[in-house]
Amino acid sequence: MIRAAIAGGTGYTGGELFRILLGHPDVQIVAATTTSSDGVPVTSVHRDLVGETDLCFGTGLNNPDVIFLCLGHGISRQFIDTHDIGPDCMIIDLGNDFRLDGDHAGRHFVYGLCESARDEIVKAHDIANPGCFATAIQLALLPLASEGLILDEVHVSAITGSTGAGKKPGETTHFSYRDNNISIYKLFTHQHLGEIRKNIGAIAGKEPVVNFVPFRGDFTRGIFASVYTRADGRMTVADYRKLFEDYYAASPFVFHSDEGISLKEVVNTNKALLHLELHDGYVHISSIIDNLVKGAAGQAVQNMNLMFGLPETTGLRLKPSAF
Amino acid sequence: MIRAAIAGGTGYTGGELFRILLGHPDVQIVAATTTSSDGVPVTSVHRDLVGETDLCFGTGLNNPDVIFLCLGHGISRQFIDTHDIGPDCMIIDLGNDFRLDGDHAGRHFVYGLCESARDEIVKAHDIANPGCFATAIQLALLPLASEGLILDEVHVSAITGSTGAGKKPGETTHFSYRDNNISIYKLFTHQHLGEIRKNIGAIAGKEPVVNFVPFRGDFTRGIFASVYTRADGRMTVADYRKLFEDYYAASPFVFHSDEGISLKEVVNTNKALLHLELHDGYVHISSIIDNLVKGAAGQAVQNMNLMFGLPETTGLRLKPSAF
Amino acid sequence: MIRAAIAGGTGYTGGELFRILLGHPDVQIVAATTTSSDGVPVTSVHRDLVGETDLCFGTGLNNPDVIFLCLGHGISRQFIDTHDIGPDCMIIDLGNDFRLDGDHAGRHFVYGLCESARDEIVKAHDIANPGCFATAIQLALLPLASEGLILDEVHVSAITGSTGAGKKPGETTHFSYRDNNISIYKLFTHQHLGEIRKNIGAIAGKEPVVNFVPFRGDFTRGIFASVYTRADGRMTVADYRKLFEDYYAASPFVFHSDEGISLKEVVNTNKALLHLELHDGYVHISSIIDNLVKGAAGQAVQNMNLMFGLPETTGLRLKPSAF
Amino acid sequence: MIRAAIAGGTGYTGGELFRILLGHPDVQIVAATTTSSDGVPVTSVHRDLVGETDLCFGTGLNNPDVIFLCLGHGISRQFIDTHDIGPDCMIIDLGNDFRLDGDHAGRHFVYGLCESARDEIVKAHDIANPGCFATAIQLALLPLASEGLILDEVHVSAITGSTGAGKKPGETTHFSYRDNNISIYKLFTHQHLGEIRKNIGAIAGKEPVVNFVPFRGDFTRGIFASVYTRADGRMTVADYRKLFEDYYAASPFVFHSDEGISLKEVVNTNKALLHLELHDGYVHISSIIDNLVKGAAGQAVQNMNLMFGLPETTGLRLKPSAF
Repeated sequence: MIRAAIAGGTGYTGGELFRILLGHPDVQIVAATTTSSDGVPVTSVHRDLVGETDLCFGTGLNNPDVIFLCLGHGISRQFIDTHDIGPDCMIIDLGNDFRLDGDHAGRHFVYGLCESARDEIVKAHDIANPGCFATAIQLALLPLASEGLILDEVHVSAITGSTGAGKKPGETTHFSYRDNNISIYKLFTHQHLGEIRKNIGAIAGKEPVVNFVPFRGDFTRGIFASVYTRADGRMTVADYRKLFEDYYAASPFVFHSDEGISLKEVVNTNKALLHLELHDGYVHISSIIDNLVKGAAGQAVQNMNLMFGLPETTGLRLKPSAF
Repeated sequence: MIRAAIAGGTGYTGGELFRILLGHPDVQIVAATTTSSDGVPVTSVHRDLVGETDLCFGTGLNNPDVIFLCLGHGISRQFIDTHDIGPDCMIIDLGNDFRLDGDHAGRHFVYGLCESARDEIVKAHDIANPGCFATAIQLALLPLASEGLILDEVHVSAITGSTGAGKKPGETTHFSYRDNNISIYKLFTHQHLGEIRKNIGAIAGKEPVVNFVPFRGDFTRGIFASVYTRADGRMTVADYRKLFEDYYAASPFVFHSDEGISLKEVVNTNKALLHLELHDGYVHISSIIDNLVKGAAGQAVQNMNLMFGLPETTGLRLKPSAF
Repeated sequence: MIRAAIAGGTGYTGGELFRILLGHPDVQIVAATTTSSDGVPVTSVHRDLVGETDLCFGTGLNNPDVIFLCLGHGISRQFIDTHDIGPDCMIIDLGNDFRLDGDHAGRHFVYGLCESARDEIVKAHDIANPGCFATAIQLALLPLASEGLILDEVHVSAITGSTGAGKKPGETTHFSYRDNNISIYKLFTHQHLGEIRKNIGAIAGKEPVVNFVPFRGDFTRGIFASVYTRADGRMTVADYRKLFEDYYAASPFVFHSDEGISLKEVVNTNKALLHLELHDGYVHISSIIDNLVKGAAGQAVQNMNLMFGLPETTGLRLKPSAF
Repeated sequence: MIRAAIAGGTGYTGGELFRILLGHPDVQIVAATTTSSDGVPVTSVHRDLVGETDLCFGTGLNNPDVIFLCLGHGISRQFIDTHDIGPDCMIIDLGNDFRLDGDHAGRHFVYGLCESARDEIVKAHDIANPGCFATAIQLALLPLASEGLILDEVHVSAITGSTGAGKKPGETTHFSYRDNNISIYKLFTHQHLGEIRKNIGAIAGKEPVVNFVPFRGDFTRGIFASVYTRADGRMTVADYRKLFEDYYAASPFVFHSDEGISLKEVVNTNKALLHLELHDGYVHISSIIDNLVKGAAGQAVQNMNLMFGLPETTGLRLKPSAF
């Protein structure tokens, strides 16, 4: 059994890690730290886990084999510096501290987008887990990047659920505001652009220009990304689809669908679905994930599986909610 | 023109008063006070009013003919005591300070449920505007009470939209929590029970026992109340419906429907719809209102119309949103 | 491996059975019948299963050990009469054909509410799976019934998600109608009342009077039931809670919570959560389930587990969606 | 009083016309035709109008001054050919029959986008009312087009509410499907592209290339359009905003907001709000309208007001629903 600790387990991604790891056959959760809820049962914070666990939040790490950091962005460095994490203990950071610069405290954090760096992750000791938008958008671009087919600027519109905004209540997550509402935020400036440009650039040999319009959606879970760029005029839609199918042939969670897709087809799963069309000289890819699973906790566990030599899908065959 | 002031205009009921009064042909809004936003344009707070008004929040009352108090419950008394409101200025309090005890500072606040006290309101100087649940539930009970037909305990389940919980964000108004969710609160103890028992008791000659299960709904506007009590075995459903139609014949906003009703039929209007059935010895009434309109700001304006001798519907023929 | 067939697998409960059984370690789905989609891949109908199964709908049953009937109400009898189901093949009917009268074609269908008839189910050959509302409401009443504590009429209000209305589109499941809307249907006459009265009556020794107000909710999954009846004046809330905890001590999916509950705590799981309070001489129980899981497909698999001698929870430790 | 008839009044836009025209001080609805509901009260179909009108659907037109055609796309020509509409009776077609080719049966239908053709509309006899997406997108482009500032391709993502899909129930308007879901449809091929290219092309002197990704949103009312194209490098954001403010200075329903906007700020009103930013060499405009009001029935009434010499805003100062 892998001894796993969760740091910062009271938030949405922390809760999602509990939900996934409690059903993982090879993992035992040995600790859950928090700054504010020492001694509180996990089920008091994550009420859907009533009957699933007796664990309480605490301050000790309890000698884990792996620790998941679900801290606010910018807090992971600080946590590592102030806690005595043994050198054998692997770290998977779900924040953005090590995505652009992976070196810290003698550790090297590999950018953990499994579908682009599986071989590297298998050998990694520490992981910078990708951002949710970054995951959805890159899954649409990876096959193109791998073949030098990002020929021009990339145009992205992507809509995220409210859980992407975290647990702290505020004006734009108030139900009275958000229900039946749509808005744009961080137009052309979203913080995930950096990791997208860097990682796709490394694969394509050149950093792409990505114009990104992020929308706040009036749903809780999931990201729907619309991605398009200039097509290679010599390729048919069948050529493009074959490229995508080949690229993801060994990836157990990513599928191209010849039919159009809708967000709830992946909600509450670790899957990504892609759908590709050609129009007016553009290749357009729709890409959908669950922001908390494939976009956060699920991908973190997928990384853990790879690092510990387990089948990539262990504990991640999750029942879709579908509705 | 009636010179109207709004005290506490940054919240949901305050905003709703702006929306209604800006379209009222006989009203001029002369002041909007707030504790926190002095000098801020009303349109910065109520963004849907962009293009509708140049008014700014301020501290002065500007010599109004009527002032609407949209303050937190318990603050109205304090506001009256600390502001120099001229004796001619009428007050309509949308909080619960004067619903059970209407006497304060030499004023007498009439309980402003228009459908039960129209004659009294026409002559009133100050009004305690009813609560939203209290309005929906009493409209279902008034015809029964008026004929002594509340024969036993009353069983009420009622579901409210999130705007009933106010503007301040919190755990149970967080979109991630509330979307697609249902919960119960203040079971059998909701604070509106007092005014229901008192007002219905005064009409029926005896305070009814009301068992009230309030639900938090995952929508923004409206209240759907299910109300039933023991039927008089000699009365048919036609008898009961005639009683309701007769009772509300002179009320321009309350209608009985022979067909079943659904909440959105009244949302964004000042109307109430009732639907009555007989089953298993019980008379059951469904009652729907918009909590912010007929349950708050609209009813307040309806009271104002009556007090100022205007037709009751002036400025209150609002386009339903319907969807 | 248990060879399972699903009859009528294109609807909501059929889809949910696929989702659950595909993750069940001891089950192989050997056939999925349908009247309309012969030869169509299951993933074309249940799009969330892309990548999970290659099964196609067909007409043959393929010699199953157990068959789940997910047919329209009233169609199960007909299906059994017109198909050659071997006598060894167990049947679990998710419709309402055998809930009130369990004898048909030489088979005896046991009413499969696991928490009230576990011992009988273990020995059963055929099962009438309970209705969704019937499950939520009976779980609130079983401990009372078992101790003769249903002292008076029972008052129930319960809200269901749209999946309870099935897949066929119609006026009251149109998004434009249902979003942000609430309505009542089948007031005091819902078809689940029969099985509730019969089963609770058999346990309590007397059929209870149940006044039931069913609401259509504007969410997709889940049922929230509010249930109250006269309390025994000698019992404290602690007494009642202990009764519930004792009653469900051996039930792995039903829990009493001392804190208030909200619907999403059980959505996408096979769990039921109960919360009990005492007020004004009434004992009130909130009861929540996922209508498609514990209220249908999950409970069917729970029954299968019991009948096949598996641990009751096999394949039913589902990740909650939580949001 | 203007005598108005509504043809095809049972659908969503027909219902919306009733809602608006019943509150219009200068209009009397004299007829409402339908193919299926002869003799049925309007309130039986549009239940939110209970108490507002006694009108019944019928077959006669009753000698109107203006007739609004709310028929399926392609049916308007047929209706005109088969009904005896007097030559003096003005026609406002809310379908797409005359948007690209305005000449039919001796009539000339002017493209009724008030903000681009007010002078022509004032003198028009018949109107082709613009499409909903076409309205939202063109309002974002008109000021640019008028100054020759559409320098390159235009990139549009726009999300529509479910009422845009009409009243007939179907798979993608089923609540169980659509709630908390997002999908794309008619990618790069939406039928409104034709009228956008034609009308903007006529103003700009050249048809623009518009890449349009339409999303199905999980809300009922409204369109949020994200529109961007290459900026003129010599212009600041202040220059662009001034251009927009100047262009719409005489338009009583269109406003630029310096702050970001969210869809519900215009829902249930005839307003459009625009918000403009400059990033990375692009000028980006957010544009929001209510698809049934400014995108259909409200704009139709706005056109009627102009044609009949009334103030443009008559009957169109609608209370926002806001939540």
